[in-house]
Order: sequence, then structure tokens, then C-alpha cells
Amino acid sequence: MEFHLNGFRPGDPRDHRRRASAPAPQPLPSTTDVLIVGCGPAGLMLATQLAKIGDISVVIIEEKTGPIELGQADGISGRSLEIFQALGFEERVLKEAYFLQAITFWNSDSDAPERLVRRYKKPDGRTVYSQFPHVVLNQARVHDFLLESMARSPSELTPHYGVKLADLQIQTGNPQASHPVLATVTAQIPGADNDSGALSSIQAKYVVGCDGARSTVRRHLGIALEGDAANSSWGVMDLLALTDFPDVRMKSIIQSSHHGNIMIIPREGGHLLRIYVELAKLKEGARLSRDNVSVEQLIDNIKKILSPFTFEVKEIVWWSVYEVGQRLARHFDSRHLSSEEADHPHGFIAGDACHTHSPKAGQGMNISMHDAFNLGWKLAAVLQGRSPPTILHTYTKERRRIAQELIDFDRELAELFSASTGEETSDDAGSPLQQALLRADGYVSGTLNTYGTSLLTSQPTMDNPPINLQIGKRLSSLVLARLADARPMHLSEALTADGRWRLILFSDDASPAQPTSRLRTLANWLADNEASPLLRTQEPRKDIDAVIEVLTVLQAGYETLEFKDFPDLLWPSRGTLKLRDYNKLFCPQSSALHPFDHFGIDRSLGCAVIVRPDQHVAACFALDDTEAIQAFFDHCLRYRS
Amino acid sequence: MEFHLNGFRPGDPRDHRRRASAPAPQPLPSTTDVLIVGCGPAGLMLATQLAKIGDISVVIIEEKTGPIELGQADGISGRSLEIFQALGFEERVLKEAYFLQAITFWNSDSDAPERLVRRYKKPDGRTVYSQFPHVVLNQARVHDFLLESMARSPSELTPHYGVKLADLQIQTGNPQASHPVLATVTAQIPGADNDSGALSSIQAKYVVGCDGARSTVRRHLGIALEGDAANSSWGVMDLLALTDFPDVRMKSIIQSSHHGNIMIIPREGGHLLRIYVELAKLKEGARLSRDNVSVEQLIDNIKKILSPFTFEVKEIVWWSVYEVGQRLARHFDSRHLSSEEADHPHGFIAGDACHTHSPKAGQGMNISMHDAFNLGWKLAAVLQGRSPPTILHTYTKERRRIAQELIDFDRELAELFSASTGEETSDDAGSPLQQALLRADGYVSGTLNTYGTSLLTSQPTMDNPPINLQIGKRLSSLVLARLADARPMHLSEALTADGRWRLILFSDDASPAQPTSRLRTLANWLADNEASPLLRTQEPRKDIDAVIEVLTVLQAGYETLEFKDFPDLLWPSRGTLKLRDYNKLFCPQSSALHPFDHFGIDRSLGCAVIVRPDQHVAACFALDDTEAIQAFFDHCLRYRS
Repeated sequence: MEFHLNGFRPGDPRDHRRRASAPAPQPLPSTTDVLIVGCGPAGLMLATQLAKIGDISVVIIEEKTGPIELGQADGISGRSLEIFQALGFEERVLKEAYFLQAITFWNSDSDAPERLVRRYKKPDGRTVYSQFPHVVLNQARVHDFLLESMARSPSELTPHYGVKLADLQIQTGNPQASHPVLATVTAQIPGADNDSGALSSIQAKYVVGCDGARSTVRRHLGIALEGDAANSSWGVMDLLALTDFPDVRMKSIIQSSHHGNIMIIPREGGHLLRIYVELAKLKEGARLSRDNVSVEQLIDNIKKILSPFTFEVKEIVWWSVYEVGQRLARHFDSRHLSSEEADHPHGFIAGDACHTHSPKAGQGMNISMHDAFNLGWKLAAVLQGRSPPTILHTYTKERRRIAQELIDFDRELAELFSASTGEETSDDAGSPLQQALLRADGYVSGTLNTYGTSLLTSQPTMDNPPINLQIGKRLSSLVLARLADARPMHLSEALTADGRWRLILFSDDASPAQPTSRLRTLANWLADNEASPLLRTQEPRKDIDAVIEVLTVLQAGYETLEFKDFPDLLWPSRGTLKLRDYNKLFCPQSSALHPFDHFGIDRSLGCAVIVRPDQHVAACFALDDTEAIQAFFDHCLRYRS
Repeated sequence: MEFHLNGFRPGDPRDHRRRASAPAPQPLPSTTDVLIVGCGPAGLMLATQLAKIGDISVVIIEEKTGPIELGQADGISGRSLEIFQALGFEERVLKEAYFLQAITFWNSDSDAPERLVRRYKKPDGRTVYSQFPHVVLNQARVHDFLLESMARSPSELTPHYGVKLADLQIQTGNPQASHPVLATVTAQIPGADNDSGALSSIQAKYVVGCDGARSTVRRHLGIALEGDAANSSWGVMDLLALTDFPDVRMKSIIQSSHHGNIMIIPREGGHLLRIYVELAKLKEGARLSRDNVSVEQLIDNIKKILSPFTFEVKEIVWWSVYEVGQRLARHFDSRHLSSEEADHPHGFIAGDACHTHSPKAGQGMNISMHDAFNLGWKLAAVLQGRSPPTILHTYTKERRRIAQELIDFDRELAELFSASTGEETSDDAGSPLQQALLRADGYVSGTLNTYGTSLLTSQPTMDNPPINLQIGKRLSSLVLARLADARPMHLSEALTADGRWRLILFSDDASPAQPTSRLRTLANWLADNEASPLLRTQEPRKDIDAVIEVLTVLQAGYETLEFKDFPDLLWPSRGTLKLRDYNKLFCPQSSALHPFDHFGIDRSLGCAVIVRPDQHVAACFALDDTEAIQAFFDHCLRYRS
């Protein structure tokens, strides 16, 4: 899709009108289940996830007076696209985004340093880690999709803009209090002085600070930020330009021996460019801001580094400067505040409020959204009485390690960027920076993040566990054929972000019609046994799959299998009309890898894989190990009986 | 995507609110370039295409008071999805639709006629004819996408609902008259008697009747409908049901020896069913309507045919009855009215106004949209002064043959449906009906339609024409890698429906940097020679590619090629900022078939393929045959100089 040819315009490129008018301000409720502070990627992801799960009241406030239109983050990892798929709008991102498919490295010619030489031009290595590519799209558009998704949910959720957090307390001493969070906010009056707004208060069961690097929630929760600023500084800009640099539509890192480094990231629409330009060699020591660095300086630096190629800027869309700093919050929740909070925390922070780092790895928006995607379903499960509050402890445990990895990676990258000139590069090995970038492909795809053992993530217990299925990682997807209609689809399409657990049964080799079938035996136990977690979580007049959905992956093709041979539980009656659900059974797709080979599952025995509501693998058990299945859910679910 | 579980709800399944409020009625303009009568698939496709091309005023009127929500057509062919891609919304259809991937045939057991036996369960054969599958989605949703696409265009086009055509004249005797069409319309007053509306008149340059089988435009243009009604009758319904018929989520044709035939088409959302039920054996002779056939009769018939399987209806969403009739309009335009109209027709009909037939082949909505897609760009080209009015003659010539083929196919199918019980079926050959259905896969995909020789479609002239590239057919697509960014994309993604011609240059085997390169020589001729159709069509201050866009397909991979080796014309400066367009050159994608093999092009010579604005191949010439390229465009374009 081509856009921005005649200059940048914000909004939906397929809509001539581009921007819908801002929603009319709604009155602020005085109580809510979850108060979210901040409308960045973390806050909007959390609000969208809660809106999709439903039955939870959410208030999301934002200091700014409306959605952003320009600049900021743009990299979207394969894992983020998987999450967008779980929320139902991945295809819109794919339609608009630039795809990172190739990468080039350039540096000064050691014999003639006034020349630049291309050292590397190859496919981007990230495409193998997810069914989705790594893409690039304006953060504003990601916000748009999340905002639209929230607004279209049954709660028709929209943010309250121009509302600033003034005070925040978590009231302790009364563990029975239903809404221990007391927030005081000021609603800005458009056009008036920033602090002139009327005070009002909101009581909430939980508060989540998604309010960025200078988080007010973090300050009120008394959470320290650890780490320090590094000494390199960068400028960043979105622009339209004319150049004879040949790889301007590929991600390119150019290291000049005398003038520093730039990174070019082509952007959506066919013309826009994001450029990161090193400033350390421009200004030593002093603190940088837009006040003491001009955009002309940035462009001048780009021209020097790109020389002898020409570079003529036609339009500057957005620019900023930053110092590379790596800081990490000591806690991601309020458990340090009191013993009550230690048991059942009511305050959380997510996204940049937890971790600050350079944008160079293209990870900020992604990791922030992943934080929220980890937290949202846990809050919902506790609010709905489906899980004990102890599951909330796993949020810090799981996400702080990812944040630490990110910061370590960013520090390594920043040092290599600033230290390396690329002159040492040979075509085969690449410079240390180039090697580090290539090594990081898997990490940057976001699909290798692994959550450690907890009550949500079991230790491996099987004798012969599937060799390609790692507990704690998100379930890797593959193309299957749906039994009912032979539709080729990714397994991930069935794992929607609706707060449900999935129990995926990989069948054994017996016919499902036979009493010897382990699949049949387990399905019968799940349907009938009083210890079945499905029965024990089923609410009156709700479907059997409302808390745990059972999906089945079979070994044979759809042509040879019959629904009548499968226990009812595997294609249950659902909804107010009690229609049969034919869409829970999957077969191998003839043109794709067999799913049992994809995961390394023993075809004679099969297995049962428990997948968390955030698509991470929680456990893997033998099909006949009902005890282990029962024990796992006993720990993380609250039963009705 | 699951929806309709708890009953059918119209509108966008991803929007809880489902239906946007109807747009406020706009005042009817008194003059317009194109008056479109009718908001069915043909009218909306035509309006959308004209809105996308731009600079053309359009008024589209519809008798009904608003968009449809229920019933009617549902089959969407691969070719229709290709057209949706050219309009920019194919991914939304793919997200919601049911995919026809498998087909089953059942009939009575000859030994025990009270039993049904499955004779056939196999992949649907249509998947090989297009990069898109054949899908099924409510016509109302297709309308929604077209309506949204129009509304988002620069003209922000919306239909005028509740407006009925009362009179229509094409004023002859004054060939200089700019708006020879005079239409009188009545605007309905909501709630008032149907004919009580105020009269007003609209003068238009062209009128297109997309007003269905009982077309008022057709009547006013004096066009006869030829053919007659066949004697079989069918009921059709959309419903939610419980059944133990095992293939209820696959397209299934069930032929019962004593009770007639039904066809089950599963629908979007996982639960909805479309069922066609034969009524001929229920009621002989008499004319059928919803007045003398009850929905209970239809359901009773379904139950008898499906017996011994159970069938319990939970909700009836929509139903109708029809007699299978095949009629074809003698003309598709107004050329028969006068000698002036014979030269330059100003009235047209499209869609069901031209051809009526049964819905069984799932072709009605598709062929209607294809009619409009054939006509729209031609009207636009004449209105914009880019082509002579004689190109309008090709509309009837090209589309009437397609309509005749459709009617012949429908007649064959209807006879086989009614005559055949399927008892003669053996597993290997299938019944005559089943064989006819399988034979028709290519036809039904819509991608094999071929337009005969005309001033828009040249006769083959090359000595060694590409063996897999048929002039007159739509260009078959394949995956390529874009030179600039290595993005894998279908060639069809570059052929947007913007009214432009494409000249696709398949390179010869010389380096494009060498003077011996035929590609370079042709590009230089196109850029510099006074006979170049690009130069002769270029308007002041418009881009060189505004009327004819040159795309290039190369033989080598992106890693080995450099932009500087290609003439400027192949990556020209465009737009108000004069940015370079890097997106017009394509390479083979390593994991896909080589494009030269896909089309059967001689790698030593390459070739130049002219593609019409509707994606049909107009001509194929040798790269050095500038004379033929010039002669082709001389006939169908009007030059500025």
C-alpha cells in the first residue's frame, strides 16, 4: 500500500478522512475494578485485553488530551503480531506495515575512508521465529487498532483523556475492603492552565501504572528505579527524503569511521524513513534535549555519515533526541508496601514505568505490550473469582526477568554501536555489532521469552516429553486443517485472548471410537469425573468451555475421521441455542509439517498440553495422567464446588 | 472467528455495536457524471471503482430505505477476492468468511433407500485457480465493505436511499449535449406511501441500471429480456440447527431418491447454514412465492431428505423461494436506440438487470460485480478524456458472452439437480451432477473468463508468445520479491484498481546497465521518444505513471541487483515532493516458482505485457517491438499531443 507520497498524513491510510473525531468526554466513574493510568502501548493493551475478556469494569485515564499522531515507537515483533491475532486485528497491521525482510551493513572503506562499502545484504533472520514477520508501523496506528478494539467490545471502553493522576493510595488495614485503591485525579479543562482541573476521586480494586518512564504511579507506590544513564546520545527522526544511497528501503546500519553511525529503518507506505543518528561525537558530556540540539544538526550529521551518497530532506515529520539509559524498577507491584499487599497486591506498573532503555532494539513498544498481556488475564481471573490472588505474584517474577534481559541486550547493543566503526568487518563474519544484531534475532522476535516454574507454569514431569515443546514459552503455531471444514488455519487462531485456559489433547494412536483410546478415556474423565477441573469450574448456565477450553489435535487427515467417533466433550453443545461446536478438532494439513513432528510428540501415546490464557505453555502431561492435570489446575484455579 | 452462536446478528462481527447508524440523507445533486440506479453488488462495485479512480461525480440511488442486513447471495469467487484486493479490502473478507475447502456428495443407498450414503468427500477443486480460495459470506457484509470503501474515498461517496427512478430518457438529436441522460426520481418520505415522494430530476452523462431482475432502467432503455423460466423450483434459507448429519460444516449435496435434493452451504462464524431445498417434487406447475410455500414446508422437506439423520431448527434467519429461470438481456447498453447512441452509448445495465438465473452456482453476486468492474474504468477513461467513447462498445461484447456462459452453465446444473437422484453414483466417477460440478470448478472460480479481440485486447502477434499468458484473461498472479525491500508479495498487489494501465516489462537476459539490454532500450524509448504513449498521455504537473504505470519483473534475486543500473523511468520521481518510487521492480521470490516459468516467458528475450485497468491481459509484445506498443495504445488512448 502506498501512502505519505506527497507528505506525511496521520491516521488510517485507507480513509481519506484519516482521523475520526475524538469521542465525546464521558463522566469519570467513582468506582471501578481496574484503574489504568496511561494510554501508551501497555495501558491500551491492558484495557483491550480486559475489555475482550468482559465482565470487568475498567477506567483508563491519560494526561494528554487525545491519541498520539506522530513519532515514537515503530517496531512490531512477531510475538506482538501473534498477540494482535489473539485480539483479532493482526491482518490490519500486516496490511499497512513495512516488512523487515532484509538487512544491510555499510562502513567506511579502510583504504579510502571517504567511501562507504556495503558489507552485508541478506534476508532478515527474524522471519523463522514466528508465523508473522517483524514489521514496522507508526505507534499511533497500533494505538488506533487497540482503541478501536476496546470501543467495539461489549463495554464500549474509551479512555478518559486530559485526566491526570494527582494522588494515589492503597488503603491497608482492612483486608475486606473491596476497593482498596484510592486515586485522586484532575480533569483538565481544555485550553485552561494544566493544573486548573477539577479534583475527583476514583476507588478501584486494582491500579496499573502504564504511565511511562516518569511514572507517577511508580512514585506513589514507592518503587525505586535502578541503573544509570550511559554516555551515548542519539537523535531520531521520521522524514521523507531523496537519496542515492541504494539500500534506503532496507534496514541499514551505516558506520562511518570519522562521523559516527546511523541506522535507517524504512517505514510503512513506501516512502517514510526512520533514522537513528549517533550524537555522542557531536556533543560530549552535556545533557541533550531538543533545546540544545537542532534538527539541522541531526540532518547535517546524517549527510556526513552517508557521504559520498546524497541526502536531501523533503519533509521532517517528527524528531527527538535521547540519551541511552538503562534503568529497571526494583518491583513491578506493590507487595513491598505491607504484609497484606505482599499476599494480594493491588498496585502494578507495566511498560516503560518498569524499564527504560534505548529504542534501538525496537523492543520498547513490544515488551510493554507483552507486560500488559501477561498481567491482564491474571487480574481478570482474580476479579472473576476463577483464580486465587497468589497468581498475581507471578507477574513481577515473569516480567522482571524479561525486562532485565532487555536492558542487558540494550546495553550491549548501545556499547557496540558507539564503540564500533565497522572497519573491522569482513564479509564473512561481520563487525561485533553486526554479529550481535544477528545473534539477537530470536530474542528480538519476542517468541523465545520463557517463564520460569510457578503455580502457572509446571515443571516438566513426563518421561518422554515432546522435544520441541518448551514449558514456559509461548506455544509455537503451525498450520492445521480443521476437521469440520478442512480449513487450513494456524493453531494460534484458536487461542484467542478471551481469558480462557486451553487443554490441547494430542491424540494417541488408538481409534477414538475404541475404549482403549487414551484420548477417549481422558475426555470421559473430563466430562464425568467429579474431580474434573472443567466440571468444577463450570458456572450455572455457562458453557463447559467457559474457563478451560479443550482442543484436540489428531494424527489422521479429515477425510478419514467421523465426528460420531469422538466423545461429546470434544465438540460440545454451547451457547443459548445449545449448538454443537465443530471447531475444536484439528488434523494435519497435508502440505504442512505434521503437528506431532512439529512438537516432537510420541505418536503412540500423544499428550495433554495446558496453555495459559496468554498462550504460554503451562504444562505437558501424559494423556492418562489425570492426577497431574487435576493437581495443576487445583493450584491455579478456584473451584465452585 | 466464531459468531452467530447465540443467534444471528447482522453487521460487523468484530463490533459489539454491529451496525453504524445510517448516514444522514444528503440533498440530491441536479447533475452528475454517472447516475447509478441500484445498491446491489453491481451498483456498489461500480460506485466504489469510480470513487477510487477519482475526479468523477457519481450519484447512486436505491429504492430501499437502507442497506440490506440479511439473506441473498453469499458465494465469493477467487476472482471476486482478487478484485477486492485491487480495491484494498480483501483481508477483511478473508478474516470473516467461511472457506469452501471440501465438498461431499450423499445419496440414497440403492439397496436400502431409507439410508443415505456418502459418495464423495474431497478437497474443493477451486483452490488452484486463484491465489484466493472460494469463500462464503453474507452479501450484506460485502455491501458493507464496498460502502465503507466509497465513503472513505476523496469524494466521500454515500448512496441516496429511498430514491426511486420514475422516468429516464436519453436525449438524442444534440450530440454536443454534455449531459444527455435525464432521470426523474421520487425521494421517498419515510413512513409515507411509496409513491408519495417529491419528484426531482437529475441530468447525467451516463446512467447505469444496476437495479436487478426487474430493472426499471432496462425497461426505459427498451431492452428485451430473452429466455424463459424452467420448471423446477427451490427454497433457500439461512438457519441455525442441530443435526447429526456429519458433514454439516462442508458444502454437501444430498440427493434422496424419494424426496428430492438439498444443498448445504456452511457459512461464516462457525454455525450458520445456507440450505437450498428442491421444491419441484413438492408442488408441480403452480407459480411459487412466499405466499403459497411456508417455511415449515421447506423444513419438513429438509428433514425428509436428510432422514435418517436428525435435523432440529433452532433459528430461521432468512428464507425465500424461487423458480429457476434463465433470461438474458438482448443488449447491455443503449446503442440500439439511435445512431448517436450506437457511436457513443450513454445508458448501460449491469448485474441481474442483464441476466437472471438460479443462485445455485453461487455466481450471481460475482458476475454482477465483474460486470461493473469491467464497465467502471471504461466510463472513467472516457469521462477523463483518456480514451475514445468507442471503448464503451466492448462492455456488451465482453460481458454478454460471460453472461451467456453463466446461463448455459446454470441451465445444465438445474437440469442435473432436478433429474438426478445420485443413485447412479459410484465412488470413482460420481453422478452426472457431481461430475458437472467438478468440471465447473475453473469456471466458477471466475478466473478463466476471457475477453475476445477488440481495441482493448490485441490479437497475439509475437513469434514465441509466453505459453502460460493468455491474452484476454486476467493476469494470473504469483509471489515475487520486491527489489527495494525483499518483501514477498503477490504481483496482483501492485495492480490496484485506480484506472491505470500497466505495462509490465519482463527483462531480457542482458544486464540492465548494458546498452545491449532490451529492457534499457525500451525504457529509454518510453522515457524520451516523442511517440511514447507515456509522454503523450502525461498531463501537466502529473506524474509520468498517471495513465500507464511501468512495472518491471527481473530474472535475478534482489541481493545481486542495484537500482543505479536501471533507467530512471523504472523507478521514477513522483508526487509533489518528487520522491523516487522504489516499488515498481520485482525479483523472483526464492521459495516460489520463477515468474518466467510461471508465465512461460523466454529468458533470453523477455517481453512486454500490457494489462488493462481491470487486470485482464490486453497484449503481449517483444521488448523491442515499440511499434506494436505504440499502435496498441494509439487505438485505445486519446493523447494530449
